[in-house]
Amino acid sequence: MTEILHDVARIAHAELLTPTPEESLRFFVDVLGMEEESRDGASVYLRGWGDYLRYSLKLTEAPQPGLGQLALRAWSPEALDRRVAAIEATGLGRGWVEGDVGHGPAYRFTDPDGHLFELFYEAERYVPPEHLRPSWRNQPQRYVGRGAGVKRLDHVNVLAADVRANRTFAQDVLGYRLYERIELDDGTETGAWLSLSIAAHELIYVKDAYGASGRLHHLAFWVDTREECLRAADLFVDNDVYIEAAPSKHAVAAGFFLYAYEPGGNRIEVTTGGYFVYDPDFEPTVWTAAERARGQFWGVHTIESFHTYGTPPVEPPASR
Amino acid sequence: MTEILHDVARIAHAELLTPTPEESLRFFVDVLGMEEESRDGASVYLRGWGDYLRYSLKLTEAPQPGLGQLALRAWSPEALDRRVAAIEATGLGRGWVEGDVGHGPAYRFTDPDGHLFELFYEAERYVPPEHLRPSWRNQPQRYVGRGAGVKRLDHVNVLAADVRANRTFAQDVLGYRLYERIELDDGTETGAWLSLSIAAHELIYVKDAYGASGRLHHLAFWVDTREECLRAADLFVDNDVYIEAAPSKHAVAAGFFLYAYEPGGNRIEVTTGGYFVYDPDFEPTVWTAAERARGQFWGVHTIESFHTYGTPPVEPPASR
Amino acid sequence: MTEILHDVARIAHAELLTPTPEESLRFFVDVLGMEEESRDGASVYLRGWGDYLRYSLKLTEAPQPGLGQLALRAWSPEALDRRVAAIEATGLGRGWVEGDVGHGPAYRFTDPDGHLFELFYEAERYVPPEHLRPSWRNQPQRYVGRGAGVKRLDHVNVLAADVRANRTFAQDVLGYRLYERIELDDGTETGAWLSLSIAAHELIYVKDAYGASGRLHHLAFWVDTREECLRAADLFVDNDVYIEAAPSKHAVAAGFFLYAYEPGGNRIEVTTGGYFVYDPDFEPTVWTAAERARGQFWGVHTIESFHTYGTPPVEPPASR
Amino acid sequence: MTEILHDVARIAHAELLTPTPEESLRFFVDVLGMEEESRDGASVYLRGWGDYLRYSLKLTEAPQPGLGQLALRAWSPEALDRRVAAIEATGLGRGWVEGDVGHGPAYRFTDPDGHLFELFYEAERYVPPEHLRPSWRNQPQRYVGRGAGVKRLDHVNVLAADVRANRTFAQDVLGYRLYERIELDDGTETGAWLSLSIAAHELIYVKDAYGASGRLHHLAFWVDTREECLRAADLFVDNDVYIEAAPSKHAVAAGFFLYAYEPGGNRIEVTTGGYFVYDPDFEPTVWTAAERARGQFWGVHTIESFHTYGTPPVEPPASR
Repeated sequence: MTEILHDVARIAHAELLTPTPEESLRFFVDVLGMEEESRDGASVYLRGWGDYLRYSLKLTEAPQPGLGQLALRAWSPEALDRRVAAIEATGLGRGWVEGDVGHGPAYRFTDPDGHLFELFYEAERYVPPEHLRPSWRNQPQRYVGRGAGVKRLDHVNVLAADVRANRTFAQDVLGYRLYERIELDDGTETGAWLSLSIAAHELIYVKDAYGASGRLHHLAFWVDTREECLRAADLFVDNDVYIEAAPSKHAVAAGFFLYAYEPGGNRIEVTTGGYFVYDPDFEPTVWTAAERARGQFWGVHTIESFHTYGTPPVEPPASR
Repeated sequence: MTEILHDVARIAHAELLTPTPEESLRFFVDVLGMEEESRDGASVYLRGWGDYLRYSLKLTEAPQPGLGQLALRAWSPEALDRRVAAIEATGLGRGWVEGDVGHGPAYRFTDPDGHLFELFYEAERYVPPEHLRPSWRNQPQRYVGRGAGVKRLDHVNVLAADVRANRTFAQDVLGYRLYERIELDDGTETGAWLSLSIAAHELIYVKDAYGASGRLHHLAFWVDTREECLRAADLFVDNDVYIEAAPSKHAVAAGFFLYAYEPGGNRIEVTTGGYFVYDPDFEPTVWTAAERARGQFWGVHTIESFHTYGTPPVEPPASR
Repeated sequence: MTEILHDVARIAHAELLTPTPEESLRFFVDVLGMEEESRDGASVYLRGWGDYLRYSLKLTEAPQPGLGQLALRAWSPEALDRRVAAIEATGLGRGWVEGDVGHGPAYRFTDPDGHLFELFYEAERYVPPEHLRPSWRNQPQRYVGRGAGVKRLDHVNVLAADVRANRTFAQDVLGYRLYERIELDDGTETGAWLSLSIAAHELIYVKDAYGASGRLHHLAFWVDTREECLRAADLFVDNDVYIEAAPSKHAVAAGFFLYAYEPGGNRIEVTTGGYFVYDPDFEPTVWTAAERARGQFWGVHTIESFHTYGTPPVEPPASR
Repeated sequence: MTEILHDVARIAHAELLTPTPEESLRFFVDVLGMEEESRDGASVYLRGWGDYLRYSLKLTEAPQPGLGQLALRAWSPEALDRRVAAIEATGLGRGWVEGDVGHGPAYRFTDPDGHLFELFYEAERYVPPEHLRPSWRNQPQRYVGRGAGVKRLDHVNVLAADVRANRTFAQDVLGYRLYERIELDDGTETGAWLSLSIAAHELIYVKDAYGASGRLHHLAFWVDTREECLRAADLFVDNDVYIEAAPSKHAVAAGFFLYAYEPGGNRIEVTTGGYFVYDPDFEPTVWTAAERARGQFWGVHTIESFHTYGTPPVEPPASR
């Protein structure tokens, strides 16, 4: 069990699909304040000022918005081998690919819901060009201060038809720890907050309201302070970015949030805060439907779309 | 190597010695806003509102201020056994003790500098009494909002005659990871920032300016925002608490700080911020003396006492 | 015109009526963090740490919640005389009263909607007792740091059947300046933000949704930072205080808000931010119904009760 | 007396002289985040996003850094006439000039120390071009979010050989109110904090340590939150802007500060916070030398240059 726990180190990057690549790029660069680190074909690779690897977002042109793939980094070559073996045993493996900008060979697989993942170990540490060299060497890049100035990708929230199946896959096969989850009175699991570290969440599964598969709820980008979330909201307002949920504090995981749609239609969060889990025997909080009906931490009730919209968009089931 | 890395989970609590127990207790309860969780003999056990275990500070009456012991929690019973064996092999082991309020049997040892540590696995999760029950169950305790309202103990900074020897002990025997260190031109190591998690530091060794052994530089308590550090400084001013270093941002580790002396004479920090290390191959930043001469992140030069004072206080060496 | 403008200096204090005086007092002292400065009969006089006069809130037991009176301070004895003459000319004067805790003779009157006001000049500057003496003399009182730690009363929002009539009374008779207002397509004025200073609002009139008279929408208490509003919300949650509107940013006047009900049923705001009006020829912003339909600054739509509830509570008109 | 008090409304703008106009412009635009509103000859006119007039900073090429002139706006044409008559009576008048970008005829004069002022009434309200049109009409300009994003010029601090003489001129001739001042044991006045409004300071006189005349201590630019001051410090570090005093809280006036030198050599402050003075009989705080020796609010001792450096730079007197 122990070696499973620490075989996967982190989410290295997420690939976001967008039907409006130029507008999406402008959003991530000018409004969120990321840097373009590389380009390759239909993809632009973007980084926050606090990313130690070369990038944390791969933005790829596609007919539909959604999640391209989620790239995880293993803790070591041995850990990579162990996880690949475990994944292959589940039948969800897709095989090795050669690598991509900034990292080495990767093993592709899907979770039970069909989201595409890859797992690799070899990765390039970011070396800033002269104009992005920071004043202090323990900061990977100069703080440019453009737009919201997000520091790095923080977590990924995906929708799934069966949360429990995907949550247990993440725990048993990838070594994620479970910190919070929601279970309805009929036993249905509708949300699970998972982490590879002391951070309260890195990967979240939420039940797809339409029963669809492989959809994205949101990508979350980190800022160091709640004031930066508030400031980001001001920027969104003056840049005509649609705010779906104004800054407030989550009940689950207690993080501070701001939700908006990037021009390609994908939901984006600017986030900070939450709690740290230092203990090995931390008991996950299990929420009931009644408790979730209280809304967010300060009583805010998020709008309907927050609980139904995902990318790619799908039609509500007829029988709904 | 891998199993070493994750055998120790965290600093469970620190024991602080004070010659003025009543005044120190008033400081931690009324000014820092901690709760008294238990008492036993000459000790009072205190907790922040975010502590998942019963307490993170043990305040003990003693003739001199200083660090009593530093209690670490192992990841599992097996991890505890592995670490005890490794410690015993170094000759620094002291043997088992029965336990204390809130935790089971503990193995005592010292680091090479003579600071007393203990390591245990069994620990009680905090169950709040009725008047401290939080509104949301994923928060361990009601947020009372008294004084600075610190959330939990964050890190411990100890002075050592030989930083390198203690740093390598922490790495090789306890499994700490090294994120930053300072090395003078003559090769002397004068500071090392160590962590068991993605947090930028949990245990820090700094060279004792007087060449003494076993001394404490400071205990640091976490708040979630920089604004809380600023507010704590206002509280310190109006509570006649001596501020040694007003709120500002560290160069090393990039955390936000406020340093003060509690009534017993020990240095206390209120801290937040910093960076997270998600990557397994993170390369520690090594600072030169010239770089450290730039002062803190925004150019603040901390006063002389910050670099010499520790507890218990000692006389400067005559030859200095 | 010019002398009208500066004859009234400020809102000195507001009197709040409560059917649950003990619970309301506990809220203002323990949760909002005010100090009890004096008592007289059925009233307790409360102050924030930043009040230069003795108090800014008079809390009075009464069968129903609501606003007792709003006390204004004139700029000088001559200004007081000028304003009294002007008020008397309107027929809304009620005559002089002897004074109250902390201030001299006051002239009573009502606005056209029937809210009771008083106007005085003589007032006592606060002299802190020993235990509340601040460290720095330019701060009127020690910063105690209890609860939300509000600094002072900031503004008062009253409901009125006819906003325009009351707004012009405030401008023409009391010398308030108008900074923003809302006018529906049919010409009905539904809100007016008035000030005696560069602050964006000190007195607000909002149309009473039920057509009632003399009701209170809310009293607003100032904190210096948005983070203190967020912290106050955490305190409200853990003190079972009903939050009607979680922290966010207003569209009108651009202030930061948190709305809650104190135990007596009156709506309370914790506020900061907004803009300053330094120019004499500032042109008031006039909002249309369509613009107000966008919600608050970041798109938050406040709940229905925010637009209908006031104190004392009344029944909705039958024909509604 | 009363009409003196409100005849002058505000500091409309300050003119800053710089020997490095291009570098200074880049600093104000790229690092402080101001907008270029107009150009005329050797001057560029700059504005913050919260300025209601067209600009608040006029940046002018000159052989030496320093203050060009300080432009005040009168409350009305009548108030302008009254003040001009009062100034002429002092013999410090210089006569009328035709006006400048964005405002009408102005009367020029100096204070006793020789700083050049001008006073006018007619001024143009800012009308944003399409690309700077804000989402909400009560905000004068779009919040662009570039650099530190300062909102507007806040206050001006000038050095004077004789503080008392200049302070009384400001009070008796211009109608400023005095909120705080420093008086040494020998009766020398070494600082005076003056305001035309409830804001704790708009114009400050500090004794010139070198006995020179007409020098500038600093221009202060407003941000709405302390977090923006901290963020500005990060930006300064990564833009090689010299920080003279890292973010902290002033003892006098209790404002939050960050001091740096713009490329031309002038000291610039990024500021927020402080207190409001609503009462007509507010008694100024008078500080002794002993009190000022405590340093700033949290004990920070600003470096020597903060007390001696001004622009234009001068040599220390030989006898010092």
